[in-house]
Amino acid sequence: MEKTRVFAGVDLGGTNTKLGLISETGEILDRLQVPTPTQSGYEQVVESVADGLRMLIGSRHVVAIGIGAPGPLDAECGVVIEAPNLPGFAGKALARDLQIRSERPVVLENDANAAALGEWWVGAGEGIRHLIVLTIGTGIGGGLILGGRLYRGSSFSAGEVGHMTIEPNGPPCACGNHGCLEALASAPAIAARAREKLQKGFESLMLDLAGGDPAAISAEVVSRACAENDPVALRVLEETGRYLGIGAANLINVLNPELVLFGGGGAQAGEFLLAPIQKEVDRRSFSGSRCRAELGLCALGNDAGVVGAARVAMDANP
Amino acid sequence: MEKTRVFAGVDLGGTNTKLGLISETGEILDRLQVPTPTQSGYEQVVESVADGLRMLIGSRHVVAIGIGAPGPLDAECGVVIEAPNLPGFAGKALARDLQIRSERPVVLENDANAAALGEWWVGAGEGIRHLIVLTIGTGIGGGLILGGRLYRGSSFSAGEVGHMTIEPNGPPCACGNHGCLEALASAPAIAARAREKLQKGFESLMLDLAGGDPAAISAEVVSRACAENDPVALRVLEETGRYLGIGAANLINVLNPELVLFGGGGAQAGEFLLAPIQKEVDRRSFSGSRCRAELGLCALGNDAGVVGAARVAMDANP
Repeated sequence: MEKTRVFAGVDLGGTNTKLGLISETGEILDRLQVPTPTQSGYEQVVESVADGLRMLIGSRHVVAIGIGAPGPLDAECGVVIEAPNLPGFAGKALARDLQIRSERPVVLENDANAAALGEWWVGAGEGIRHLIVLTIGTGIGGGLILGGRLYRGSSFSAGEVGHMTIEPNGPPCACGNHGCLEALASAPAIAARAREKLQKGFESLMLDLAGGDPAAISAEVVSRACAENDPVALRVLEETGRYLGIGAANLINVLNPELVLFGGGGAQAGEFLLAPIQKEVDRRSFSGSRCRAELGLCALGNDAGVVGAARVAMDANP
Repeated sequence: MEKTRVFAGVDLGGTNTKLGLISETGEILDRLQVPTPTQSGYEQVVESVADGLRMLIGSRHVVAIGIGAPGPLDAECGVVIEAPNLPGFAGKALARDLQIRSERPVVLENDANAAALGEWWVGAGEGIRHLIVLTIGTGIGGGLILGGRLYRGSSFSAGEVGHMTIEPNGPPCACGNHGCLEALASAPAIAARAREKLQKGFESLMLDLAGGDPAAISAEVVSRACAENDPVALRVLEETGRYLGIGAANLINVLNPELVLFGGGGAQAGEFLLAPIQKEVDRRSFSGSRCRAELGLCALGNDAGVVGAARVAMDANP
């Protein structure tokens, strides 16, 4: 029997769902990953999450469950508004439906917000009052901790940092805009930039790491080639870091945070990506050294979402 | 004798200082404007503000004084950090020094923040919980009301919306960066864009309104020509509005406000400027109609700073 109160966190993804039992000090007590039966529809996904929770929780006492889900949602009502990667989820009362099946209070939160909360609670942003977390994955998500609290905006849509315009006439973004940060610096954009270099005839270790198949080049391959000092891969991250640096400088100028963290698969290259980001931030942030924001890397990796979701449950059940 | 508590607001500018007596419902009871003896140095400016306050207050009971000043400052300590347009102000304990001379509690706030607070209190943003105010003058300042409170950031530098990068390779900005919103859409940038059109040979009413002297073209001249349907002036505002729209869309994507207000001399053209801003925001804001932010014009004009400064004094003396 735990001496601390225990919460469950769920990180609902289009492919896999991660679940964890988290103590009220943010320690991960146990974890589980289950496939998300996305194509089987909403009811099946909820059932699968509830099953996973049952397995994970067993006979333990769990106070409440927090679930982080992608896409615009109404955190107060626990309703998903849109979820492009989860067919049938739009308009569904996910929190209520999971609550019925799991017989515990369930709170819903945007997954990028949950990840930011996790990093702020027990990760690289621990205790920072003004923190911005950028998650570089298939898209670029963001979470804002302002004044020691998650900032959600007027309709739970704050933190869409991936859709800041960085190059007004830049490449098209899935959102319909042009030159969004996401279109320039997400993991797929990094991979596309790498492939472009190869098409131009640059020789690079990246092709070998991808088994000779340019289509198999991913942001991870670029990171691995950087670790081997591949100049073409380094150049790819320099260019990517420049865009991320413009975005970070904009956020610093507008929000004056203490720390900006970068996480997700696209940030695996670590310092190779941070260095060009820092260079651009130094160039473009207004207040210079006087109120310089630190830049850093997320610390919790894939656990951030689960831990943060548990924190949401904890905050809602004090 | 007033039935309500009365506060004094001061809007300290490089050329003139505005003072007002404000009721606790935000009503302007009396006002005064005095020249700022900028070149005579800090002590003379403080003395002049104190004199103005004495004249304005007379024998009335005033609870406290709020002063809005340009430049980075420490609102908590009441100290000016930098003030490019006010020689000798850097490092000065302005709140304390004015408090000694005026024998009332004095609170210091950034002038853009004060103006935003004014608009939120009794202006076009009254009662809006998530509000962004952009003031288009010599520079572009900003104030953020997030969750019904002024957001100052970790070191009182939040809201530098004028230094968001809009065109990474755009024109140089006084801050050292390139392509800042301020370099593209401040009042001087609007005037410069108008002069450029004339240099290219476009015929425009603007030249007549400026007395035949291109150097005399100002943002105000552009506004007046727009009111007369001058196509070149309209084109100047279209181009300017596009940049402001990119900036506004970025702020909407990141902060999800309910309302974005535009004020200052550069926004005198009103709807002629709002229309192209709206067009660009519609194109570039991520969440589309679902959580669309309204755009609008400030309502208090030059009074916003004085009223907001009084509100700062009121909040500090409940």
